[in-house]
Order: sequence, then structure tokens, then C-alpha cells
Amino acid sequence: MQTVTVVKIGGQVLDNEKLLNEALVQFTSIPGQKILVHGGGKAATDIANRLSLPQTMIEGRRVTDPETLKVAVMVYGGLLNKSVVAKLQAMNHSAMGMCGADANLLLAKIRDKSGTDYGLVGDIVSTNENILISLLKNGVTPVIAPITHDGKGQLLNTNADTIAQTIATALAKSMKVHLIYTFEKSGVLRDINDENSVISQITPSQYSQLKNDGKIFAGMIPKLDNAFEAIRSGVERVSLGKANELLSVKEARSGTTLLSEEGSHG
Amino acid sequence: MQTVTVVKIGGQVLDNEKLLNEALVQFTSIPGQKILVHGGGKAATDIANRLSLPQTMIEGRRVTDPETLKVAVMVYGGLLNKSVVAKLQAMNHSAMGMCGADANLLLAKIRDKSGTDYGLVGDIVSTNENILISLLKNGVTPVIAPITHDGKGQLLNTNADTIAQTIATALAKSMKVHLIYTFEKSGVLRDINDENSVISQITPSQYSQLKNDGKIFAGMIPKLDNAFEAIRSGVERVSLGKANELLSVKEARSGTTLLSEEGSHG
Repeated sequence: MQTVTVVKIGGQVLDNEKLLNEALVQFTSIPGQKILVHGGGKAATDIANRLSLPQTMIEGRRVTDPETLKVAVMVYGGLLNKSVVAKLQAMNHSAMGMCGADANLLLAKIRDKSGTDYGLVGDIVSTNENILISLLKNGVTPVIAPITHDGKGQLLNTNADTIAQTIATALAKSMKVHLIYTFEKSGVLRDINDENSVISQITPSQYSQLKNDGKIFAGMIPKLDNAFEAIRSGVERVSLGKANELLSVKEARSGTTLLSEEGSHG
Repeated sequence: MQTVTVVKIGGQVLDNEKLLNEALVQFTSIPGQKILVHGGGKAATDIANRLSLPQTMIEGRRVTDPETLKVAVMVYGGLLNKSVVAKLQAMNHSAMGMCGADANLLLAKIRDKSGTDYGLVGDIVSTNENILISLLKNGVTPVIAPITHDGKGQLLNTNADTIAQTIATALAKSMKVHLIYTFEKSGVLRDINDENSVISQITPSQYSQLKNDGKIFAGMIPKLDNAFEAIRSGVERVSLGKANELLSVKEARSGTTLLSEEGSHG
């Protein structure tokens, strides 16, 4: 079975040219087929501010009105996506920038507005993983921006973590998938204030235990719930760690690796 | 031999939602494999103005400084490209938005600055037509934004007419190619003030004659020189006409068709 590594990089990496170059060098060093999913970062907020767009926030989340969506499409789908692709090409690593509308990669529906209305935000309903498999077979690495579409001509904003998980899960039907989330921490920490307290490996039963013991801090719970959901859906392993330690996170020399119960015995 | 139609749409179409939808409906009605190349339009100038970027013009041409390039990448490579792709998907026509950096489609070198310095403008040095052929085989229509890259991580601004011609010529090595330039006129006119004076068919010798007779107006000469260059390089036919008459231009029921001498007898 062919293996593929799906790596998600977030805003803090995209905002910092040096960090980004470092992360991309490590990304290209990962052996075998791979896919990069990127988030947004401050660039979109900066552009929105310079365009004097008012930003509406509900419970700490930005509302995606039509003008804000345009900025997201410009910055995520255009500037960030193409800059990352050009950098990868410069590393002799052929890449194809895409958003969810391209080749119908990620079909979404606008989020239900009966509760809070977050605007033009999409929840993914289907994934065309065949285009990814076809690009990978051609030696081309997909680079995916956090924009989806509704199939009726409307582009939508979608969370990059969710996109990475959805793509990893869809590929797991026919490939061995390693999903890596990079973030600002060295991994899942036993003590949030101690970067040296990384838990190197967690199985679902250990995760339940850690939650029961109150050892997992609040912000990590949705991230890990999501990650274990990927494991339950067939993704072989999920790792979390720093972008500038990507290669050692891939090789489980740093960061946290989540495994299925069976995987932990393997 | 497989046939492919390469269509270029320009700014005046992209700036007008109704015209754009009409052109895309006609585009999707063209039988067989096709590729869309799009230009810029006013959106980039609008964004640049709203961002208060000073625009430097030399002899009527915009100079692409680094900030202007960012706007071009955002607007052409992001907003316009992804909007066109989402519209095509809504017409059940799968499309893949790309710029020249994607899959190394269009490798360029920065334009020689010994004369006038137009900034970050790229002249194409090589084309990876294999990615286009592979997408077409998968039933996916490439939609190409007028941005290239230098292979060293630098994105560059490149004229969309030139991109359309370069791609058509590269594909002509293995396919029968029909290149269609849409523009604001009904075709090549005998009388610039009379939209009913369209010359329906021109061969290279007829073109020489028309130029000698002063029947071709000045602005058309570089466009037609370019188009005949494509014909000489193996493109089967080149047509020019209005975007909202795309299908009848394709079928030579309107617009102007340029043919090789041999083609005119066929």
C-alpha cells in the first residue's frame, strides 16, 4: 500500500519567512509522497485592515462577510498558496497549488445559520481525493489553501485543520496516511508551561485516561478529538509538533504521535 | 490526433459578471478538450488603489514593483482564478486553477532591464505542457492566471496573450490546437469604425497584403503578428472575436480565423 504524509502548517509559520523556508526545506526532505495544507495567518487581517474592511467577530471568531471572503480567497488562495508553490519549485520539488474548488477537491455546504451566523463558512460534504492521487502519481505535491466551494459558484472559508483531517481520512481508503499537524508547541505537553514535558505517544485509551486525569489542557481537546477521529477513520498515525522540527516529528524523534490501540503494539 | 481549444479571455470580460457568465457558458459548450487563459482586469487596479499603492507607468505600461506583484498574485492568481473555477464547477465542468508556478507550468526569466525596467515581469523560457495533457485526460479543464515564476522562488507578472500563445504552441507538438483570442471587437475589421466589416478569414499572404494596403489598424498588428507566429509554430488555427460570441467564433460563424496557407485550401 502506497504511503502519503499530509502536513498542515499554520499562520504563525506563514507569517514568518524564515520559519516558512525552514519548514518547507524539512517538508521536502520527508521521503515519499506528500501533501501540504496551509492555513491563513496575519496577512489576510493586514490586507483587510489596509482595505478598511470592518471585521465582525462573534465569540472570538471572525465572521466571513462577502468582502472578507474576497480577501481570504486573494490571500490564502492567491498570495500564500502561490508563494509556497514557487518556494517549493525553487527547492526542485514540483507542487500544485489548489483550493477546494479546483477539480472539485472539497465540496462544502454553507454552515447552518440557525445558531450563530459565521457568514460564508463551509462545512465539507465530499472530497475528490482522486485528483490528489493522480497528481502524486505524476510526482506533483498538492499544496492546499483553506477555501472550499458549494458547487453553485460560491467560494467558502474553511478551517485548515479540518481540511487536513478530511483529506487524510479520504486518502486512508486507499493509502497508508500519516497526518502531521504543526503548531506553536513542541507537542502535547503534560505541563503546558514546560516545553520539555512532551508526551511522545498516545493511544485512544491513554488519551481517555489523560483527559480524566485533567492532564490535557483545554485548547488541545478539540484538536486531539479531531486527530483521534482521523485515527478511527483509518488514518494510520497522527503527529503534532513544531514546524521547524517537522522532519523529526515525522520520524517520531520529537512531537507527539497518536496511534490506534493496535498501532501501539506494532 | 487529439484536438484542444485554448481560449483567452481578457479584462473587460472579467470585470463584468454578466459578460463573464455568458462567456463561460459558451466556453463550456465548446466540444472536446479545452483550456482557459485569463487576463487581469480592473480588479487589480482597484485593489492597488484601495491599498494606496502608487502605480508607476512607463509609456502606458504599469511597472510591476514588489507590492504591485503581490496584488497581481492575489487578484489574478487568487480572486479571479478561483472565482472562474467555482463558476465552471457550478456548470458541472471540472476545472483546475493554475498559475505558471503550479507544476512548473511556465518557467520565466525576469525581463532584461538594460532597456526600460518594467519590474517583476517574466518572459517565458519553458512550458510543462505535460501537466495540462494529464489534467485534460482526467476530464479537468486548466484555468490559467497570468503569473509565472523564475524557478528561484520569485513569482512574475506575464501577459496573458503571450501565455495563451505559448501554451497553444507547446501543445501543438502533440495535439491539433485551435487558439481563440477574445477581445472587445467582433474580429479583425476592414474598417475600424464598422463592426460589420469583419474579415472572416486571413492567410499569411493575405495578411501581408492587408498590411501593405494599410487595411490593418496599428493596434492589431502586434496581436496578429503573435497569432501568425503561433500558426507558423504548428497551431492549426487562431481565431479572434467577442467573448459573448465565443461559440460562433469557435465554429467560424463569426470573428476572424487565421489559417496557414495550406489550411485555407483544406
